[in-house]
Amino acid sequence: MIVVPLIERKRDGGTLTPEEWSAIVAEYTAGRLPDYQMSALLMASYLRGLERTELAALTDAMLASGQRLSFDGWATPRIDKHSTGGVGDKVSLVLGPLVAACGVAVPMMSGRGLGHTGGTLDKLEAIPGFRTNLSLAEAKAQVQKLGCVLIGQTAEIAPADRMLYALRDVTATVESIPLIAASIMSKKLAEGLTGLVLDVKRGSGAFLPELDRGLDLARTMIELGADHGCPVVTLITAMDRPLGRACGNALEVEEAILALRGEGPPDLMDVTYALGAEMLVLGRVAADTDAARREMEKAIGTGRAAERMQQIIEAQGGNPGVVDDPAALPQASHVEFFPAPRRGFVARVEPRAIGRGVIALGGGRTKIDDIVDPAVGFVITAKPGDWVEAGEPLATVFASDRAGIETGRATLRTAIVIADEADPPLPLISHRVTASGVEHYARD
Amino acid sequence: MIVVPLIERKRDGGTLTPEEWSAIVAEYTAGRLPDYQMSALLMASYLRGLERTELAALTDAMLASGQRLSFDGWATPRIDKHSTGGVGDKVSLVLGPLVAACGVAVPMMSGRGLGHTGGTLDKLEAIPGFRTNLSLAEAKAQVQKLGCVLIGQTAEIAPADRMLYALRDVTATVESIPLIAASIMSKKLAEGLTGLVLDVKRGSGAFLPELDRGLDLARTMIELGADHGCPVVTLITAMDRPLGRACGNALEVEEAILALRGEGPPDLMDVTYALGAEMLVLGRVAADTDAARREMEKAIGTGRAAERMQQIIEAQGGNPGVVDDPAALPQASHVEFFPAPRRGFVARVEPRAIGRGVIALGGGRTKIDDIVDPAVGFVITAKPGDWVEAGEPLATVFASDRAGIETGRATLRTAIVIADEADPPLPLISHRVTASGVEHYARD
Repeated sequence: MIVVPLIERKRDGGTLTPEEWSAIVAEYTAGRLPDYQMSALLMASYLRGLERTELAALTDAMLASGQRLSFDGWATPRIDKHSTGGVGDKVSLVLGPLVAACGVAVPMMSGRGLGHTGGTLDKLEAIPGFRTNLSLAEAKAQVQKLGCVLIGQTAEIAPADRMLYALRDVTATVESIPLIAASIMSKKLAEGLTGLVLDVKRGSGAFLPELDRGLDLARTMIELGADHGCPVVTLITAMDRPLGRACGNALEVEEAILALRGEGPPDLMDVTYALGAEMLVLGRVAADTDAARREMEKAIGTGRAAERMQQIIEAQGGNPGVVDDPAALPQASHVEFFPAPRRGFVARVEPRAIGRGVIALGGGRTKIDDIVDPAVGFVITAKPGDWVEAGEPLATVFASDRAGIETGRATLRTAIVIADEADPPLPLISHRVTASGVEHYARD
Repeated sequence: MIVVPLIERKRDGGTLTPEEWSAIVAEYTAGRLPDYQMSALLMASYLRGLERTELAALTDAMLASGQRLSFDGWATPRIDKHSTGGVGDKVSLVLGPLVAACGVAVPMMSGRGLGHTGGTLDKLEAIPGFRTNLSLAEAKAQVQKLGCVLIGQTAEIAPADRMLYALRDVTATVESIPLIAASIMSKKLAEGLTGLVLDVKRGSGAFLPELDRGLDLARTMIELGADHGCPVVTLITAMDRPLGRACGNALEVEEAILALRGEGPPDLMDVTYALGAEMLVLGRVAADTDAARREMEKAIGTGRAAERMQQIIEAQGGNPGVVDDPAALPQASHVEFFPAPRRGFVARVEPRAIGRGVIALGGGRTKIDDIVDPAVGFVITAKPGDWVEAGEPLATVFASDRAGIETGRATLRTAIVIADEADPPLPLISHRVTASGVEHYARD
């Protein structure tokens, strides 16, 4: 294909046809369109934007580059949740089994850690034996049996997305709302969903820190979902501090298990219930979000949610014993409290610093082939706005050696700011965005 | 080097430092910065522009990537002419020997055909035996002996420019004023010039058809020259019709030889004298352009200009006999007149169509390794505004076979438009741009 005139047209602010996007993605995936032309087109698309029809066509083409889960003729609603990523965000680990236990199937495909944020796949692999690389046939069978599967993006799913993402990552074309939306949606559509709930983080630790960019992404995803028969509901949630207390792979799995047993920290439970309620309403198994919340509380209270987690872990080759006894998860050899250096209000707990600290401890990657230490990380009990006395424990460092403890302490000294006054943190859940528009979030 | 943050900054409209541009070009030339990152940076630069300091730094870096002609301690002024390219533009072939015969050295490095336009190198190589690939040492010696050398961009000169140009060509990032200016100036500075005259074409056959874009390029080149101690004067000339009559490599050499003997067509002579006059004034061998013009007319009238051409051809291994007997140039086997299909005014002679026609006859390239047939092309005597009778010859087609004649006739049927009325063509030379500003062109 002659691609230069197409790059020119996009460069000059024009629109490519669906057929042109389809051909571009097909040629690129087949290795016939070189990276250097694709990166020029991506930069032009970044700076000029994509029309709604272009975005739909790009998404279709990425989806068409691979296979998809097909649930034709299966009546159970299938709803997934996608988060734009944060620190301490273990909501997926709770929501999958919880929502499945309430009658909505969750065919969940997750990613690895990205930048300073953790990845659900890395967390799942902290469970001894857990396999995230199921075949599509295995994944489908498990969804139909247990209502939930927790896997990675297989080579069969939207290979164009994987290739394009890798190229965007090294060409400064990641933070484009339409390109982000196409990437998310192509993978989600491959899961055979009947609806999607989006958790768009905002604040200093978010991928798109500003509210207006987050709302843009929400609106774009809602339009894109509508163009593909997949309704999307978005909540805007806070990422100016870590979510919950645990930051680090095994530590987050443990916190997720506690949440499934009804012992999760309040902010984690609030976000989980809010997102889960949207999933149950979208899946039409609850009339409204209040009813949905009661269903989820019941699933947790009766032990059904934790039991479903056990079944999923067992089905995917992991040690189901971790649900009853989280001590079976990998444990750090060095553990130490971090005391408050002075009295005052907790003014900030900086998620980016914490996320980078987990990586510095060995709990994340700086290169694609780094090996992750699942046991390391932080449990941070201090929350912005708390009053603390000097010497009071604010957090615990989990490390593999003495040097790691020092690294962790240095991280916390920077990340946790104590001051005489503290500005109020962002509201935990601030907006709800649907096809009807943006509203301030309020429980039904 | 970590280039992604630099691409990000340019993408967001920021400025890179001279050190950053220097490092980028050095890494790219060394093969350590991949094409796909460079093309993303080029597209961001295309859409965001370059600050004057960035442009100077990019040019320096491209220049520094290779060697340069050094004339340290040699008092003779050295002025080159650069044209943005057109159809039938054989001015370089005339100007080099002519200006050298008037006492200004012309170390001329030219390129090959580009798109629909011809290239001086391809034309020179129509002269049997002519070598354009001299070493820098040979070129320097010839400039000092004959005042002129006509060569191609050697591998030693600004290799970064060659690599970047090849990448821009396939990533829709060619038509950027600062990138064009950096490319031209890095090569011209490598010639060791004391001044440069720029011929910016405008009109339908030009690389930048709109006047305002041409003026932008002129101003950018003037600033860039000033930043490097190389004064630049620009003339804006017409490319809404071919320049002169001949279009095709050997045919244009023949016309250039006729011009050097005082028998060139008027439009070619006007442009040649106008550009040459600026060169002689910049080189301080003439007080004003009128005096310069008289010098050039004398050089032609006495035969010194044609003799200098002979010496240059001989020095570069070519057959000097072509100056006295242009029939020694390659001759087409098939020649046929093209008659006017009707009476009326010549409304248009479309240079793009003519340029593409030359390529279709085999006289240019569609791929880098195409072999050029030097003998083919057109001689078009009809000029826009002329009144013609039906059947009167408008042009001659030169081809290598019968099919070529048909191709040539088809080209001319499209390219030459006869109508009842004709809009006036663009003024042959319309503007003069110097560091003092833009003025309408008028002879002194």
